[in-house]
Amino acid sequence: MEEVSASRSHGGVQGVYRHQARTTNCSMTFSVFVPPQAAPAPVLWYLSGLTCTQANVTDKGEFRAAAAAHGVIIVAPDTSPRGPDVPDDPDDWRFGQGAGFYLDATQPPFDRNYRMYSYVVEELPELIAAHFPADMSRQGIFGHSMGGHGALTIALKHPDRFRSCSAFSPIVQPSTSGWSKPALQKYLGPDEAAWRAYDTTALIADGRRFNEFLVDQGSADSFLQDGLKPWLLQEACEKAGIPLTLNMRDGYDHSYYFISTFMSDHIGWHAARLFFSSEA
Amino acid sequence: MEEVSASRSHGGVQGVYRHQARTTNCSMTFSVFVPPQAAPAPVLWYLSGLTCTQANVTDKGEFRAAAAAHGVIIVAPDTSPRGPDVPDDPDDWRFGQGAGFYLDATQPPFDRNYRMYSYVVEELPELIAAHFPADMSRQGIFGHSMGGHGALTIALKHPDRFRSCSAFSPIVQPSTSGWSKPALQKYLGPDEAAWRAYDTTALIADGRRFNEFLVDQGSADSFLQDGLKPWLLQEACEKAGIPLTLNMRDGYDHSYYFISTFMSDHIGWHAARLFFSSEA
Repeated sequence: MEEVSASRSHGGVQGVYRHQARTTNCSMTFSVFVPPQAAPAPVLWYLSGLTCTQANVTDKGEFRAAAAAHGVIIVAPDTSPRGPDVPDDPDDWRFGQGAGFYLDATQPPFDRNYRMYSYVVEELPELIAAHFPADMSRQGIFGHSMGGHGALTIALKHPDRFRSCSAFSPIVQPSTSGWSKPALQKYLGPDEAAWRAYDTTALIADGRRFNEFLVDQGSADSFLQDGLKPWLLQEACEKAGIPLTLNMRDGYDHSYYFISTFMSDHIGWHAARLFFSSEA
Repeated sequence: MEEVSASRSHGGVQGVYRHQARTTNCSMTFSVFVPPQAAPAPVLWYLSGLTCTQANVTDKGEFRAAAAAHGVIIVAPDTSPRGPDVPDDPDDWRFGQGAGFYLDATQPPFDRNYRMYSYVVEELPELIAAHFPADMSRQGIFGHSMGGHGALTIALKHPDRFRSCSAFSPIVQPSTSGWSKPALQKYLGPDEAAWRAYDTTALIADGRRFNEFLVDQGSADSFLQDGLKPWLLQEACEKAGIPLTLNMRDGYDHSYYFISTFMSDHIGWHAARLFFSSEA
């Protein structure tokens, strides 16, 4: 693991790191904020949305003040494998590099690199545990848009690992959403049964559960009606008895101007569950 | 004036705007954050450093939470004229586009566009007063690095307009600093007497005064010894009887990771002077 940069910020250290990843067969970059507290700190995973790298939330997320105050490590992975050897469609921002959808592709040629599910769930946690003062018994996960999808699906599949899960404007039903369905087809093949493992509403319908969810969604989000449809999550959670706090935020859009506004609320919400809840 | 974008953030509106500027003879872009308060709000000018546009602080400055809480408008201009017709030296990041040094150039061909002093002091304030709910009787100014230089020099020349002035890691003596002296030579000509109008320590030596300054400086700033030298400001202020609070911040570098850490402190400091001080 190579340190790309490390800067003191809000009393802690904001670092950017690079490593050769075995799951995605390429060089991967991620950011980690370590708070000033000396003791091992809970780990809160932030998964980013389409077109993003680890840099977007690291630059624009305004998470460090709250993470430092609560004493939480924030890890921000990239959103896909990268590099000249990684298959891509540069004309489509909803597919390929920048659009990994936190799944393990099964279709060639994508199955060699597009394994962001294994990268985020297996490989990167090992690296974090080995190199940072992380208390891996206390983990939470959140994300934005495609990363909200990632956070919700990963939490539903690992309720024993994560004590808390929240999302900003998540894609809750990628199997039907216009901007994600074509990607699922290419990564996972035409059999829609295979998509259910990466679809929040399908996972819940298939019996997966999580203790509770927090979701913030801007009412002026231009993707609300077509791509996001948070009412589908609300319906699924109601049916399954999963407590969902869905905050519709009047006038906010899909950007980091929205995310950063409610970032400290989310971190405080996670911190309460990471520090004070009993073992997950 | 054209609205490039406008997003709700931290209860207010973060906008980006573009206009054809008469002082710089080119299209100029700036950002304005308007806090949620309905009443006319004080205006706090933020001037950015070398290589920046208005976007750096708007993305990474983490100023909106504090600006919204205090009810302060934040204006962030660009750092130079821009465009294919604007003279430039793309190989030198310390000169030309991205490096306007908040001065009015006198040397051709730079004198046609490089008039950032007039732009920031005359043209942009007119635009802000005309288009935003701004209380122009209450203004403060701050900035980073080259923008700290801009804030200090402009405040010293306009003590009646600005009630407060602060800086992050400012260039306090551009006449001698290795990364600014060549630019002054090209913009203002070889006569060093002409440089004094754009040099904080020279302005103070020549009798200019301001009520007080706040400066934050990272101790791990790689430009500290060569480019910045805050002790020269300390010396000048002591000699002139200008109260200076100089906070040396242990371990912090020159980046927005540093600036964003102390941004809310600075905004609170300005707000106290903008709201509660008597007429400047």
